[in-house]
Amino acid sequence: MTDIREKALNYHALPKPGKISIELTKPAETAQDLALAYSPGVAEPVREIAANPDNAYKYTGKGNLVAVISNGTAVLGLGNLGPLASKPVMEGKALLFKRFAGLDSIDIEVKHRTTEEFINTVASIADTFGGINLEDIKAPECFEIEQALIKRCNIPVFHDDQHGTAIVTAAGMINALEIQGKEIHNVIIVCMGAGAAAIACMELLIKCGAQRERIYMLDRKGVIHTRREDLTEHKKAFANNTDRRTLEDALTGADVFVGVSGPDVLPPESLKLMNENPVVFACSNPDPEIKPELAHAQRNDLIMATGRSDYPNQVNNVLCFPFIFRGALDVRAKEINDEMKVAAVQAISQIAREEVPESVLKASGYKELNFGRDYIIPKPMDPRLLKRVAYAVAKAAVDSGVAQVEMPENYMA
Amino acid sequence: MTDIREKALNYHALPKPGKISIELTKPAETAQDLALAYSPGVAEPVREIAANPDNAYKYTGKGNLVAVISNGTAVLGLGNLGPLASKPVMEGKALLFKRFAGLDSIDIEVKHRTTEEFINTVASIADTFGGINLEDIKAPECFEIEQALIKRCNIPVFHDDQHGTAIVTAAGMINALEIQGKEIHNVIIVCMGAGAAAIACMELLIKCGAQRERIYMLDRKGVIHTRREDLTEHKKAFANNTDRRTLEDALTGADVFVGVSGPDVLPPESLKLMNENPVVFACSNPDPEIKPELAHAQRNDLIMATGRSDYPNQVNNVLCFPFIFRGALDVRAKEINDEMKVAAVQAISQIAREEVPESVLKASGYKELNFGRDYIIPKPMDPRLLKRVAYAVAKAAVDSGVAQVEMPENYMA
Repeated sequence: MTDIREKALNYHALPKPGKISIELTKPAETAQDLALAYSPGVAEPVREIAANPDNAYKYTGKGNLVAVISNGTAVLGLGNLGPLASKPVMEGKALLFKRFAGLDSIDIEVKHRTTEEFINTVASIADTFGGINLEDIKAPECFEIEQALIKRCNIPVFHDDQHGTAIVTAAGMINALEIQGKEIHNVIIVCMGAGAAAIACMELLIKCGAQRERIYMLDRKGVIHTRREDLTEHKKAFANNTDRRTLEDALTGADVFVGVSGPDVLPPESLKLMNENPVVFACSNPDPEIKPELAHAQRNDLIMATGRSDYPNQVNNVLCFPFIFRGALDVRAKEINDEMKVAAVQAISQIAREEVPESVLKASGYKELNFGRDYIIPKPMDPRLLKRVAYAVAKAAVDSGVAQVEMPENYMA
Repeated sequence: MTDIREKALNYHALPKPGKISIELTKPAETAQDLALAYSPGVAEPVREIAANPDNAYKYTGKGNLVAVISNGTAVLGLGNLGPLASKPVMEGKALLFKRFAGLDSIDIEVKHRTTEEFINTVASIADTFGGINLEDIKAPECFEIEQALIKRCNIPVFHDDQHGTAIVTAAGMINALEIQGKEIHNVIIVCMGAGAAAIACMELLIKCGAQRERIYMLDRKGVIHTRREDLTEHKKAFANNTDRRTLEDALTGADVFVGVSGPDVLPPESLKLMNENPVVFACSNPDPEIKPELAHAQRNDLIMATGRSDYPNQVNNVLCFPFIFRGALDVRAKEINDEMKVAAVQAISQIAREEVPESVLKASGYKELNFGRDYIIPKPMDPRLLKRVAYAVAKAAVDSGVAQVEMPENYMA
C-alpha cells in the first residue's frame, strides 16, 4: 500500500505537477500566424459566430470539449472533501476522456453555498463547452442538479456516477442473465443501496425490461416499502407494496443482487436464500459488498461482478463515459436521452459476446477470454468500445431526434 | 481584406475547429498507468490536498493554469457580442499564454444577468486555476468585477485590457520621454478616452512618476474637470481643476498625447498646439486616433506609437500578459500588485534600450533596430521578454511580500 501511495504521488508530482496540459493545434510561430490566431484575424470567426451561434462548432474547440465538473461533495468513496481536493480526480477523468475517446476535457471545480448557486454557476459557463460531465456530487442534490442543468443547457449534461455506472451494470447484467438462462422481465432484483448510482441502475434496468414491482431496494433502514413515511421522492419511486423488511427477506427467492452501498454488507450465508443460478453485482469500491472468494465458496452456480480490476467482470465506468460523449458530441446531440443510454448498454453488452482481439488479450494479461461467467463485460482497453459504443450512441441520438447534425459519413468505420 | 478573412476562417476551421487542445502529460497506456492516474491511485493526492490545500500546487496542474474569462461585453473593438462569439478571442489568448510563456490556459465564456452573478460565477470556479485573466469586459463594470474578484480569490486576477495596455504604454512612454529629453514628473499629458484602458494607463503613469494634476483626460464631452457633475467614480479621480474644455485647449502646451478612444479623433493640425518634442501614442485599433504619416507630416520632432504592427512602436499587450502571469505564478503571488506592474514596465522598457539579438531582427524582418524614435518598445517575438519580465515580476512579488513561495533557484537564468 505504501508502494502504491508513493507511486501515485510521484506520478502526480513529477516531473511536473498534474496530468494534463493545454497545447496548440495551429501554427503560432510567426507574426503572420499570430495575426490569424489573434488580432486582427480572430475578428472574422467572432463575426461569424455572432451572426450564427452554430458557427462556434466550426471555428472553436467547443464541439470537442467536455467539462468535468464537481463540487467535491462525494469524492471517490472519501466523502465531502470540497472542490479543491477533488481536482486530481477530475483531472484524471479529463485524462481518460482524451485517452479513450480523443475528447479534449478540462476539469472545473466549483465552490458554492447552495445547490441553486452551483446550478447557476455551471449554467453560466456552459457555452464554453460541447458537453458537461458531472462528477462526485452527493445525493440527493445530484438529481436536482442534473435535471436543472439538462433543462438550462443546450449541450449534453451527464452525471457519470449515476448513468455511467448504470449503463455498464446493465450491460453486464444482460449478459449474466443470458448465461444464467433468466429473462430480465421475470427476475426478482435486490438492490442494496438507494443512492444516486443505485437509483440510476434500477431505472435503467427497468428501461431494459426489468419490472419495477420485482425490485426490492434497501437503504440503511431496510427494504423501501409503501408504508414507509421517511422516503425522498427518488426512493418513493421504488417503494414496494411488500411485507419484506430485511435484507434476508428481500434475498429469499431473488435472482439478482446489485450492491451499490458499502463493503461487506452481504453476509455470505445469505446467498443461500437466493434462487438458483443467481447474479451478484457487488460494486462497492474498493471493498465490495461481498468478497468474490467468499461468495463462490457459498454457491458454485453464481455469476459475480465487482468494481475491481483484480477480479473478473469489472464494472468500470470507463467502458461508457468516453464513448457516450464521443457519440453525443459527434452528432451534436442536445441531450443524452434514454434511447442513447440503452444503445450504449446494448453495444457494450454485445462486444463481450464476440471474439476478443489478440491485442486486448495482451493488454489485459489474459491467454483467452470467452463469453461466459468470468467474462460478461468487455475490458477497458478494448479498442472496439470507441467505434461501437460511439456509433450506437450517435445513431440512437439521430433516430430519437435529438441530434442537431447528421451522422458523419462512414462514421467510426 | 477578403484574403485575410478567408485565411483567418480557414485557420480556425481546418483541419479541426479551434486552436487549442488538451493533452496528457503523464503515461496513460497500461492498466497500471491508469491505476495511478485514476482510481485507486488518485485517492492519494486527493487525501494530501484535503489535508493541506497547498498540495494542489504539487499534485495538480493548478499552478500552471490560467483561465481567460470573458462575458463578451466588449469583444475586440466589435462591442457587446455575448460570451459565445467571444470564444475565438479567448482561445486565441490561451494560445498566446502557451506560445509565449508555456502557461496552460483555457478560455471560459460566462453568460450572466448581473455583475454580481458574473462575480459569483468566477469566484466559484477560481479554485480550479492558478490565475485569472479577465478579458473583453466592458467599462465601467470591469472595474467593480476586477476589484471584487481580487478580494474574493486568493490567486492573481488581472484585467488585461486595463493593465496589460497600461504596462506596455508606460514602458514605451518612459523610453519616448527619455529620447525627447523630458522628465515624466514634469510633462503635461492629454489622455483622449476615459474607458478602462485609459484610466489604467493614467493610473500606472502616475505610479511611474507622472503628476495627476498635469493630466487632462477627455471623454466624449471634452475635458474632465472638477465642475462637471456627470462623472463616474473612476473619472472623478481625474477631474482637473482647470478652465480647459476642448481637445485643443488640452493640447496647448502639452508634451504627451495618449489616445485610447477611437479612429481619427485627433485632427493633424492640432498637433501644432503641443510643446516641442511631443510624444503621441495613438492606440485605437485597428485605426489610430491619428495616422502616423499625417502626424509626421505636421511635425518632425515627435515620437509616435500605435497599436498596429505595420508601423514602428507597436503597443501590444502580448509584451506583458504572458510574462506577468509567468512570474506571478512561479512564486505563487497572491495578487498582481502595483510593484509587480511597475517592475514589468521597467523590464520591458529596459529591453528596448539594449542591443537587439539577431534572431529578433530576423523574425521581425528588420535589418537593424536601434533604441531611438522608431524603436522604443521591444518586438513581440523577442525571447528576452520571457526571462526578463517574468524575473522582474517574480522578484517584485517576493520583495513586496505577496509571494507565497521563494524564487526558484536560478530562476529564468
